[in-house]
Amino acid sequence: MQIYSKQIRKYSSMKLKVVKTEAADIRVPTSDTLLGSDPFHKKPNYSCVYTSIELSDGTVGHSVCFTSGAGNDWIVYGVNDISKLLEDYNFEDFTTNPGNLYKEINDHHQLRWLADGVNRMALGCIMNAMWDCWAKIEKKPLWKLLVDLDPEKIVSSIDWRYLKDALTPEEAISILNEKSSAHKNLENNLLSEGPKAYSTAGWLGLTDQQISDTISEMKNEGFDAFKMKIGQDINHDIERLTFIRQQIGEESKLMTDCNQVLGVDEAVEYMKKLSKFNITWIEEPTARDDVQGHLEIAKALEPYGIKVATGEQVQSPVIFKQLLKSGAIGYCQIDASRLGGVNDVLAVILLAKKFNVPVCPHGGGIGLCNMIIHYSMWDQIKVSSHSENQVCEYLNFLQDDVFVNPVKVKNGRYIAPESYGWGLEMKDSFFDSHQYPGGSIWKNRVESGSIKFTA
Amino acid sequence: MQIYSKQIRKYSSMKLKVVKTEAADIRVPTSDTLLGSDPFHKKPNYSCVYTSIELSDGTVGHSVCFTSGAGNDWIVYGVNDISKLLEDYNFEDFTTNPGNLYKEINDHHQLRWLADGVNRMALGCIMNAMWDCWAKIEKKPLWKLLVDLDPEKIVSSIDWRYLKDALTPEEAISILNEKSSAHKNLENNLLSEGPKAYSTAGWLGLTDQQISDTISEMKNEGFDAFKMKIGQDINHDIERLTFIRQQIGEESKLMTDCNQVLGVDEAVEYMKKLSKFNITWIEEPTARDDVQGHLEIAKALEPYGIKVATGEQVQSPVIFKQLLKSGAIGYCQIDASRLGGVNDVLAVILLAKKFNVPVCPHGGGIGLCNMIIHYSMWDQIKVSSHSENQVCEYLNFLQDDVFVNPVKVKNGRYIAPESYGWGLEMKDSFFDSHQYPGGSIWKNRVESGSIKFTA
Repeated sequence: MQIYSKQIRKYSSMKLKVVKTEAADIRVPTSDTLLGSDPFHKKPNYSCVYTSIELSDGTVGHSVCFTSGAGNDWIVYGVNDISKLLEDYNFEDFTTNPGNLYKEINDHHQLRWLADGVNRMALGCIMNAMWDCWAKIEKKPLWKLLVDLDPEKIVSSIDWRYLKDALTPEEAISILNEKSSAHKNLENNLLSEGPKAYSTAGWLGLTDQQISDTISEMKNEGFDAFKMKIGQDINHDIERLTFIRQQIGEESKLMTDCNQVLGVDEAVEYMKKLSKFNITWIEEPTARDDVQGHLEIAKALEPYGIKVATGEQVQSPVIFKQLLKSGAIGYCQIDASRLGGVNDVLAVILLAKKFNVPVCPHGGGIGLCNMIIHYSMWDQIKVSSHSENQVCEYLNFLQDDVFVNPVKVKNGRYIAPESYGWGLEMKDSFFDSHQYPGGSIWKNRVESGSIKFTA
Repeated sequence: MQIYSKQIRKYSSMKLKVVKTEAADIRVPTSDTLLGSDPFHKKPNYSCVYTSIELSDGTVGHSVCFTSGAGNDWIVYGVNDISKLLEDYNFEDFTTNPGNLYKEINDHHQLRWLADGVNRMALGCIMNAMWDCWAKIEKKPLWKLLVDLDPEKIVSSIDWRYLKDALTPEEAISILNEKSSAHKNLENNLLSEGPKAYSTAGWLGLTDQQISDTISEMKNEGFDAFKMKIGQDINHDIERLTFIRQQIGEESKLMTDCNQVLGVDEAVEYMKKLSKFNITWIEEPTARDDVQGHLEIAKALEPYGIKVATGEQVQSPVIFKQLLKSGAIGYCQIDASRLGGVNDVLAVILLAKKFNVPVCPHGGGIGLCNMIIHYSMWDQIKVSSHSENQVCEYLNFLQDDVFVNPVKVKNGRYIAPESYGWGLEMKDSFFDSHQYPGGSIWKNRVESGSIKFTA
């Protein structure tokens, strides 16, 4: 078990500068097998924008931003444009107040018009690579850097403009100090037994046999929480949920996810018909930005014991604020690369604590679970309790073949990451072969890599 | 006065195809003079993505998507990518059901992950240029094409997935048929006296003298509704509102706009201090996506007679649905290029009617008022009454020098557009000189055209 110092170094004399920023378009032809398929994203090619920021001392920070394939290059384009703002950027300005760079980009007097979506994801690419640099300079995993930061530094990272009606900076500091005497113990506990994990067993495009095999494998690894994609055909879903419930047993948690394919009233009716399967949550029952719709669904499903979960496509902390403040969601699914990076995610975790909603991070995408585990560690040590209601998504593919330091699970729990930063270094062979469109994996896949590839 | 036939032609035998799609990056160095400045967009360069779709019969459809400068190229990039889906597209598929192409793009099984912002604006570029083609083939202005479409065709244009809990397709058809006997009269009335216009007199960067001159000029043109940018300094705003109220008189409408610069509670306190100026609305009091925040502000300001208006950065019809259904806004500011084109805007206008909120379109941007006047005509003829509560924004610059058929106002009212389609054809000299970065206007403005240009 790695032991880290609590110290955060000062950079005043180091004069570190940003010397290079690069964004690569990495795509995996997952549409070959339909792993990752859901009602909307029928033939996804799991992809990411891989951003690298190099400092003058040779430190290189990385981040990933997940997409489903087409459009990955739009974000690459955006990151490359924003990177002009980072030329010769004084790294100390970032570590002194990580909120300043965030605001410089997010409130840019012209770029701001682009609003969320691609723009905020590009912001997140940049911010997350900067945080990775910082953790590497500290020689700490990202979670440990965050754990060791003073509450005031955390608060200065956050853009409070639109959040103060729900949570003030002073309340945030109270939350962060609340259990300060317990932090060290919580950290030690998590080093021996990490956050609980769950995984999707029922991808839409898989056969019963494939699902059964996945579940067996996961159960052997200690998993007792499983998710299934639903929403296209109620009869098919009833059949498959019956099958999956048999496979996982009555004691295991069973979550459902329809990826926004339903309208508000439809989602309520649909889920009522599935309530006999003892469903923990319905994830993304309707539109990503329908706060009031989620609230209506949550109220209607309360008698059935089904809670609403969402977050992977929630495009701003302001939407999260509303979902949490109103009681629309019972599980808060922060995503590592939809928002504007660490700065936004810390805000959402603190909001979730204020409104007493467990954070269950979304990790269904290449590199996402490598990132969310850091948030989950920070949350459980500094913000919330180590609660059995918190489960973190785990993707049981695209790990060992992709990353130098893949995330690991044991007995259905994550193992605390030990490598410095996010731990997102990709294997050269993977990185080179999966660059789009030039990498070797795409040589014979001109059609399935194209935006014209139909589902 | 132009008289149009009610007939819509059939294309079954025409076999029209899309043969070319192009997107141009057009930018105007408005940062030279600070026209268009607001608390966030301090030195905007009014810009647009200018999309052209050519059909096999030589018809060319155009659209504009407004931005503040930097990032305009991101949308150009996106439009060029989406245009691959339009290669050899059968135009009849669009006129048969304009909702199909919308869904093909908006629900694209990989691209959908990009969500709103750049992605939906790019969708709007494509859709609006297609609608322009259709109106030109019909030899009608866009508003007249929409007026003549059967209610069923309007309904088929709309994506109802997330809207049905607030408005059903059947209700929409009822609304569209409600006053069918009055439609012809309403159309004739609007041909002689168009929708009421208002304009911003108090851009943030202007001097008192410049504001006074603008107001005099506008009053001479018959305007009696004026808007002022506020939100950076309460004392400055009180001083300037006192000055502007003197200039425009007690009878004129006075609107305020703070472009999202305030938090929820701040906005309430700020506006209470300005209530003595008899303010019609506070526009964009807080974050673009804070439905519940807008609702809180609306309730708090109700005793002061100040209503909430928003829309120009509302990124999806789902946010509009919530704003309207909850009573958060008293004025619905549809924007011509933030949403996914005609298809989305028609949905929002119908929702506004259902919840009895006047539509006051946002036209503060290059080409936007050329587009919104068509929506306003359609709204007033087919959906709502010709109400004095409906005012359409008018931009008193970037018209005669830009467009072959500029929009015109007379006696403070728009004149119904007569040219075919949107009427967005730009003068060659303007188009060529304002292409970014190659156009002649940008030759000596390398710095002020850059994303690195600071506010």
